Amino acid sequence: MTMRPASYDGLIAQLREASLLGSCAGVLGWDERTNLPPKGSELRGNQMALLARLTHEMVTSPKIGEALADLESWVAQLPPDAEEAANLREIRRSYERAVKLPNAFVEEMARVTTRSQGMWQQARQEKNFQTFQPWLEQILKLKREEAAIVGYSDHPYDALLDEYEPGASTAQITQVFRELSAELVPLIAAIQQSGITLSTDVLEGDYPTDLQQQFGMAAAKQIGFDFDAGRLDVTTHPFCSGIGPGDCRITTRYNPRFFNEAFFGILHEAGHGIYEQNLDATHFGTPLGQATSLGIHESQSRLWENQVGRSRPFWDHFFPKLRQMFPSTVAGVSPDAFYAAINRVQPSFIRVEADEATYNLHIILRFELEQAMLTGDLQASDLPGAWNERFRTMFGLTPPDDKLGCLQDIHWSMGGIGYFPTYTLGNLYAAQFMEAAREQLGDLDGDFRAGEFGRLKQWLTDSIHRHGQRYRAETLCQRISGRPLSHRPLIAYLQAKFTPLYGLR
Amino acid sequence: MTMRPASYDGLIAQLREASLLGSCAGVLGWDERTNLPPKGSELRGNQMALLARLTHEMVTSPKIGEALADLESWVAQLPPDAEEAANLREIRRSYERAVKLPNAFVEEMARVTTRSQGMWQQARQEKNFQTFQPWLEQILKLKREEAAIVGYSDHPYDALLDEYEPGASTAQITQVFRELSAELVPLIAAIQQSGITLSTDVLEGDYPTDLQQQFGMAAAKQIGFDFDAGRLDVTTHPFCSGIGPGDCRITTRYNPRFFNEAFFGILHEAGHGIYEQNLDATHFGTPLGQATSLGIHESQSRLWENQVGRSRPFWDHFFPKLRQMFPSTVAGVSPDAFYAAINRVQPSFIRVEADEATYNLHIILRFELEQAMLTGDLQASDLPGAWNERFRTMFGLTPPDDKLGCLQDIHWSMGGIGYFPTYTLGNLYAAQFMEAAREQLGDLDGDFRAGEFGRLKQWLTDSIHRHGQRYRAETLCQRISGRPLSHRPLIAYLQAKFTPLYGLR
Repeated sequence: MTMRPASYDGLIAQLREASLLGSCAGVLGWDERTNLPPKGSELRGNQMALLARLTHEMVTSPKIGEALADLESWVAQLPPDAEEAANLREIRRSYERAVKLPNAFVEEMARVTTRSQGMWQQARQEKNFQTFQPWLEQILKLKREEAAIVGYSDHPYDALLDEYEPGASTAQITQVFRELSAELVPLIAAIQQSGITLSTDVLEGDYPTDLQQQFGMAAAKQIGFDFDAGRLDVTTHPFCSGIGPGDCRITTRYNPRFFNEAFFGILHEAGHGIYEQNLDATHFGTPLGQATSLGIHESQSRLWENQVGRSRPFWDHFFPKLRQMFPSTVAGVSPDAFYAAINRVQPSFIRVEADEATYNLHIILRFELEQAMLTGDLQASDLPGAWNERFRTMFGLTPPDDKLGCLQDIHWSMGGIGYFPTYTLGNLYAAQFMEAAREQLGDLDGDFRAGEFGRLKQWLTDSIHRHGQRYRAETLCQRISGRPLSHRPLIAYLQAKFTPLYGLR
Repeated sequence: MTMRPASYDGLIAQLREASLLGSCAGVLGWDERTNLPPKGSELRGNQMALLARLTHEMVTSPKIGEALADLESWVAQLPPDAEEAANLREIRRSYERAVKLPNAFVEEMARVTTRSQGMWQQARQEKNFQTFQPWLEQILKLKREEAAIVGYSDHPYDALLDEYEPGASTAQITQVFRELSAELVPLIAAIQQSGITLSTDVLEGDYPTDLQQQFGMAAAKQIGFDFDAGRLDVTTHPFCSGIGPGDCRITTRYNPRFFNEAFFGILHEAGHGIYEQNLDATHFGTPLGQATSLGIHESQSRLWENQVGRSRPFWDHFFPKLRQMFPSTVAGVSPDAFYAAINRVQPSFIRVEADEATYNLHIILRFELEQAMLTGDLQASDLPGAWNERFRTMFGLTPPDDKLGCLQDIHWSMGGIGYFPTYTLGNLYAAQFMEAAREQLGDLDGDFRAGEFGRLKQWLTDSIHRHGQRYRAETLCQRISGRPLSHRPLIAYLQAKFTPLYGLR
C-alpha cells in the first residue's frame, strides 16, 4: 500500500469538525425533547437552523470534493474494506448526495416538513385526513423531485431508501418481504384459529413509576448499557440519541398501569444505545465511527427487546426480581403465565403497540403504500381508502378512523419516505444475527438464565458495533451469518416461540 | 438623524449570528453541569472549544472592524444613548478588546485556567496552598500581560475590571468601598457587642427536599420568574444561565436539614433570571439585548434575595405558607423569631455563607488582595499569610486552614481577577435602586405583605431590564436614583434592619 496522502488526513479532519458541530445539534435536539421551556422553542428553532446551515456548509465544502478527486487513484489500490477505502466510499456517498441537492430545495423541504408535522398532528387529533392531505401531496412532490435529483437506476424509491439503508434496493426488500409474508400470514392465522387467548391481566396491574424506572434501569445496565456514558430520561416519544463518545442518551415513558410500555421500551432503546456506546471512538466523526444503517441499528434494539427480552430464559432470571419489586401486582402469577402475557399475538390497529408477529405486517402495508404514492399509482387523496382496504385484508380489522389508520405515524409528515422498511429489516437482521450468535457462542440461554449478557454483548460489539460503516449492511450480514439476508431465521424464531404458546401444529 | 446605513444592519446581523451560536454553547454549558454523563466530558470539552472558536472567528471578523470604521462618522451625529449609538459603543468595546488579544494568548489563557481549576480543586481538598501557588503565579503573570495588551490609563486593574463592569474604575470602587467600610465595621462591632445572639434553630430542622422545591418554585413564580420560559434544576454550584429569549435556567441545591441554602439561593437565581427574562427580545444578540454589567446583574439577584426575601413584610405573606408546608418543623416558632433567624449576623470564614452585613467585608478583603497581587505588591506565595492577617483584623477570626481561607473561591483559578467587587457593587446598587423604588412606588411593604410583587418587578423591568446595555451602570444608577452610586443606601438599609433586631443605639 502506498503511503497515506496528507489530503486524506485533511479530509478526515474536516469531517470530524463537521461531525463535532453536528454533535452539538445532537445535544440541543435531545434538550428540546426533554427540557426546553415552552417559550424557548422559537430560539431553539433558530439555533438548530444555524447549526444545520454551518454543518451543511462544512460537509459540502468544495475542499471535500477536491480531496475526494485527489484521492481517487490512491484509494483504487486499496482493498475495498480497508479503513481508508471504506471511509472514502461512504464520504463520497454522502458528499455526492449533499451537493446534488440545491440549497433552495433543502430549505423548501425543511420548510414544508416543519409545517406539515404540525398539520399532521392537528389532522391526527381531529381524525381528519383532509387537513393533512395537501401537505402529504407537497411532500410526495418534493420526494419525487429528490429521487430524480439524486438519481436511481431501477426504482425512484431506491434513491430515498439509500439515505436510510445504503446499498439496499427496493427489489431486494420486496422479495424478502414477500417471502416473509408468505409464511407469516399463515402463522398468524393459525394463532388466531388456535382458540387460545393469552391473558395479559398481569401486565395491567399497579406498577408505580419510580419502581418501573429502578427495574428498567437495572435491566438496561445488566444487558450492557453504560450509565456512566449515558442517561435515561422521560419523553412522550421515546428515542435514543447517540451524541458522541461517552454520551448516549435514551428515553422512555411510564404508564403506571401497564408494564410493557416502559420496560420493553427501555430494553429497545438500550439496544440502540449499546450499539452507539460501542462504536469505535477513535473513528468518531467519520463513517467508520458511525452505525451501518437504520436497519442494522434496529436489529440491535429488536434483538435486546425481543429475542432476548421476551425470551423465557431472560425471565427465569428477571421474574423473581419482578416479583420482589412489585409483590402484590405479580402475586400468584407464574413465570409461565407472565411469559405468555408478554408474548400474546393479537392483530391491532397501532404499529407501535403490535406484537412480534403482526408488527411486520404493519410495515409491509406501509412499504407498499408509500411506493405506490411515490410513483403516483396511488393518489394521496385515496390513501385512507387504500389503507383501510389493505388493512382489512391483512389484519381482518377495519380502522374506525384515520387516527387508528393512516394518520398514526409521524414519518410521512417528516418526509421520511423509505424509512419504514428498516424496521422489519431490523427484525430480520436481529433473527439472523441471533441465530449466528447461538451457533457460535453455544448455550446463550444458560447465560440469560444466569443474568449474564456479557458474552452476547461482546459478540455483537466484535461482529457489528466496532466496524461502524466499514461494511455495508448486506456484507455485514454475509460475514456474520455466511448468508445473505433471508426471511427464514425470523420465521423459524417466531414458529419456535408461538408453536408451544398457542399449541400449534 | 441621517438614514441608517445598510452597513449597520449588516453588522447587527453578523453579531446576532455570533450570539446565536454562543447561545448554543449556553445550552451545552448548562447541560454539562446538570446532565452530562461522566464519560462524556472529553467530547463536551471538544464541542465547547469548537463553538468558542467559531464564535470568536465571527466576532473578530475583519468585516466587523470595517463596518465599525464605516459607521464612525454617522454614529457621531446621534445622541449618545440612541439605540444605534449605544449598540455601536458596546460592539466597539468588545471588538477592540477581542482583536487586541492575540489568538495564542487566548489559547494559553484557556489552557492555564482549565488546568488551574483542577489544581485549585485539589489544593482546596488537600488544604494545601502550595499545590495551587504555581498556577496562581502563572495566572497573575497572564493577567498582567492582558492588562498591558488591553491598556489602561490609571491602574492595570481597570483593564480587567472593564470586562465585568464596563466603565467602572478602580479608584471609584476603592472610594465607595472605603466609605462603606467606615460605617459597616462599627455597625458589625455594635451588633457583636449587643450581647444578643439570634437563634437559627428553626432553620436547621427537617425540610424534605421535594417540599423545599415546591415551596421555592412557588415563591420564585410569585416574584415573577416565568417557568414557561425557564426551569429550575439541581447542581452542586447554583447558577443562572440566560440562554436566550424564552429560555433562562436557574439551579439550586437542597440541604434537607437547612432551609436557607435552597430557598434564598432560588430567590437569588430567580432575581438574575427575571433580569434575563425581561431583556428586550427584539434586541437579542446585540448589546441592547444584554445585561448591563455583572454589578447590575448582581443587584437584581440581591434585591430579590435580601431586600425583598429577607424582609419582614415578605414573611408576613410567606410564613403562614411555610408553616403549612413544614408544620412540625416550624411549629411553635413565631414569625418574628423566624425573621430574626434568617437575619442573624455572625462573622464566619466562608463568603457564600455570610450574612448581609459581613458579606461585604469578604469582598473588600478580596478586592484589596487581588489588586496587590496584580501589581506585584503581594507575592502569590505570601497570599495565605496576608489573607489570614487581614481576616483577623476585619473579622476577629483566624482561618484554621486555607480551605476556609484563601482557597475557598474558584474565581482566581478561572482567571476571574476583577470579578469580586461586582458582588458588593450589586449590594450597593440593590439598596440604591430599592430606595428609589420605594420613593417612586409608595407602599411596597403593603404589596409584599399581600404577596404582590408585580409592581416592583415591572418597575425594575422599565428602569433596568428593558434597556440592556443602552446605559452603562453609572448612568443607569444616575437615571434611576438621581445620584451616583453611594454607600449610604446600603448602610441605611442595614442600620434600619439590624437596629431593632440587635437593640442597637
